[in-house]
Amino acid sequence: MQTISEHLSFNGTQSFHTHQSQANGTPMRFSVFAPKKINAVLYFLAGLTATEETFPIKAGAQKVAAELGLMLVCPDTSPRNTGIPDEAKDWDFGTAASFYLNATRAPWQKHFQMETYVAQELPKIINNKWPVEGLNTGIFGHSMGGHGALTLALRHPEIYKSLSAFAPISAPTKCPWGHKAFAGYLGDDKAEWAKHDAAALMATLQTPYPKGILIDQGLADKFLAEQQLLPEHFEAACAK
Amino acid sequence: MQTISEHLSFNGTQSFHTHQSQANGTPMRFSVFAPKKINAVLYFLAGLTATEETFPIKAGAQKVAAELGLMLVCPDTSPRNTGIPDEAKDWDFGTAASFYLNATRAPWQKHFQMETYVAQELPKIINNKWPVEGLNTGIFGHSMGGHGALTLALRHPEIYKSLSAFAPISAPTKCPWGHKAFAGYLGDDKAEWAKHDAAALMATLQTPYPKGILIDQGLADKFLAEQQLLPEHFEAACAK
Repeated sequence: MQTISEHLSFNGTQSFHTHQSQANGTPMRFSVFAPKKINAVLYFLAGLTATEETFPIKAGAQKVAAELGLMLVCPDTSPRNTGIPDEAKDWDFGTAASFYLNATRAPWQKHFQMETYVAQELPKIINNKWPVEGLNTGIFGHSMGGHGALTLALRHPEIYKSLSAFAPISAPTKCPWGHKAFAGYLGDDKAEWAKHDAAALMATLQTPYPKGILIDQGLADKFLAEQQLLPEHFEAACAK
Repeated sequence: MQTISEHLSFNGTQSFHTHQSQANGTPMRFSVFAPKKINAVLYFLAGLTATEETFPIKAGAQKVAAELGLMLVCPDTSPRNTGIPDEAKDWDFGTAASFYLNATRAPWQKHFQMETYVAQELPKIINNKWPVEGLNTGIFGHSMGGHGALTLALRHPEIYKSLSAFAPISAPTKCPWGHKAFAGYLGDDKAEWAKHDAAALMATLQTPYPKGILIDQGLADKFLAEQQLLPEHFEAACAK
């Protein structure tokens, strides 16, 4: 792991790093806000077109994180410069649009293994560098990253003790962004799609989600109006 | 004036605009945060490499501005795509590095008329679109934009009723960034340089600056250590 930069922030340290990812077979970047005393670790997954810089730059979360002792970890939104043809041609597929899943379809499956990266590989990197072994871990995210948070937490309940999302893509098997991404990364098998759809995953739970889930959705959000987010499907699955 | 985008933010509106600038002879972009009730107008000048997006994205100022009824106006940091050769070659001169002065040296003087733009042209554009005629106006900025705020307010005390700066370049005639910019924009006449140096301007005042000036300088700032900011020169001029 190589540290790119470090900045003092609210008596903590905001830092940016790169390392060679085994899961993705490429270098990956991530950012960390580490307060002086760390009580818990919270992963943030960013949305389409974003990077590991987006949340630390835009959200202004460091002050509250410092007060609460929350370490904030933000991975990049996909591998980059993998050599896959046209990987950066579209803003809603490929580069910066991984949907945080493990691709199974060529040519993406060689490098787009973001579920393994976020849930397994990155935490080991974090544990090696910061004194957080054994602390509670939570996850949240925005839009495509909200989809990532919902699906990773529902698929790996043993890892994440808290789950929340801002304006998440909540039912990707039912919206244009999701159709494009899932067809490209997973192929045509709708049974595979359902394994990465937040509303469909919620509908499979036999008991209530133990810790509760917070979703914050603004009603003036243009992507809500365009039927890309569909929180009502997730809400219905929760109610069921 | 053409509005590029508008976003709800803390019951106000964050918006981005472009228009043809007469002063600079190019299109210019600027951003505005307008709370529901506007009590005063505050111009923010951004630093080297930044744009009209930097402050609205990074500072998180909209919440407090909404509470106080402050309208926030952020111009871009220079004209762009003017056709001047190599205008974007350096990060500390030319594009995104105007130093908010009127260039007198060719080829820059044709398009880099940022003092006239910020102090005279842009306020007319603002007054035409928003109901702020007659309200108090203040100015602040960061780094090169702090230099801009200090020098514009000291050169135009009739316009600006408040003045503050984060980590400003305070004595550009004595630092490498300033030498490069002033030689390029103004030529070799040191008497001209002094007219755009915050510490030198302060030293010419015959009476104390009427409203007080707030400068906030972090001591761990690497550009302070590199002797680019030199607030001690401005402080000494204030003391004198």
